[in-house]
Amino acid sequence: MTEQKATNVHWHEGDIGRAERGKLLGHGAATIWFTGLSGSGKSTVAVALEGVLHEQGVLAYRLDGDNVRLGINRNLGFNAEDRAENIRRVGEVAKLFVDCGAVALSSFISPYAADRDKVRALHEEAGLPFIEVFVDCSLEAAEARDPKGLYKKARAGEIKNFTGIDDPYEAPANPELHLHSDQQSLEEEVEAILALLRERGIIPAA
Amino acid sequence: MTEQKATNVHWHEGDIGRAERGKLLGHGAATIWFTGLSGSGKSTVAVALEGVLHEQGVLAYRLDGDNVRLGINRNLGFNAEDRAENIRRVGEVAKLFVDCGAVALSSFISPYAADRDKVRALHEEAGLPFIEVFVDCSLEAAEARDPKGLYKKARAGEIKNFTGIDDPYEAPANPELHLHSDQQSLEEEVEAILALLRERGIIPAA
Repeated sequence: MTEQKATNVHWHEGDIGRAERGKLLGHGAATIWFTGLSGSGKSTVAVALEGVLHEQGVLAYRLDGDNVRLGINRNLGFNAEDRAENIRRVGEVAKLFVDCGAVALSSFISPYAADRDKVRALHEEAGLPFIEVFVDCSLEAAEARDPKGLYKKARAGEIKNFTGIDDPYEAPANPELHLHSDQQSLEEEVEAILALLRERGIIPAA
Repeated sequence: MTEQKATNVHWHEGDIGRAERGKLLGHGAATIWFTGLSGSGKSTVAVALEGVLHEQGVLAYRLDGDNVRLGINRNLGFNAEDRAENIRRVGEVAKLFVDCGAVALSSFISPYAADRDKVRALHEEAGLPFIEVFVDCSLEAAEARDPKGLYKKARAGEIKNFTGIDDPYEAPANPELHLHSDQQSLEEEVEAILALLRERGIIPAA
């Protein structure tokens, strides 16, 4: 660093790392990876959790179809290869947010265990917390909800390779948290996640 | 939102937006897009700026070759198509960070005006601030520095399509800021950016 000439600029030696950003923000960081069938309630839980975290002063950011599929992944379709690349890119972006000090909330069906495990490995290799939350819901309940009318279209053959209909959903074997959105209330789901985040020291005790 | 049962959870109605995250963080957000020749000093300025912003309580995050080329863009090479896709993805990621409330510092050569202009449009369409900083430096000065020994390799023909040697660098026509890294000190460069950020209300007055 050259001699300081500027009057009111406090120079910082070296790179700013995750620990320093954590001190600035006053909380820890993690990727919370919601996985589950379409209509299982992933986004509902993520939106509610984001709101509660924000009220607690925690910087949280959701990655979902709206800002990812229409943005960085706009050049990807829904074949197997593109689905894998979709999840890979979301995982890489989530990792950057965690590195930046935020709690990243990813809500994608992410039906294949191998793709999710790669994202987990990506985080763990870098020493970044990865919390897989299985938003479990029976196909019957998800299909009965059908918030976007997608199951109807899949049953009518208008959508191919639809998870749960003609494409598999591989349930997580060892998720950090297993929610049952067809049996638990939204409050219970959010409380369960908050409890885990507190337990792991990612957010301050209530 | 269903009835509140949880004891100490403050629910938040609706999505958390950029304005609310800005209130939480206490500052505005923007993408600062550094462009210039290899060796022009983009990363040096970005690292120094990140440190100064951090000392001022501003959440800043650098996107560069280390965390992007080896992460989300690890499946991209250096041909024209891949270079364009590289910049597109970085632009989309930077946009997400701005949406999250951070000051994103992108330092890539980004030699083609069309690619940079697409990133600018991406931000402007979404009402997000985009600040293009041209880190101008003569080819002679950049080549004399050659911090990574890349010019030497390019001159020896070991690297093809190297910007400034056998691939063009298209200087920005109307950058928000035009730095001259072969004439200004690092302090002067950082001060110029801070002044612009203050002027635009992105960071609080000193």
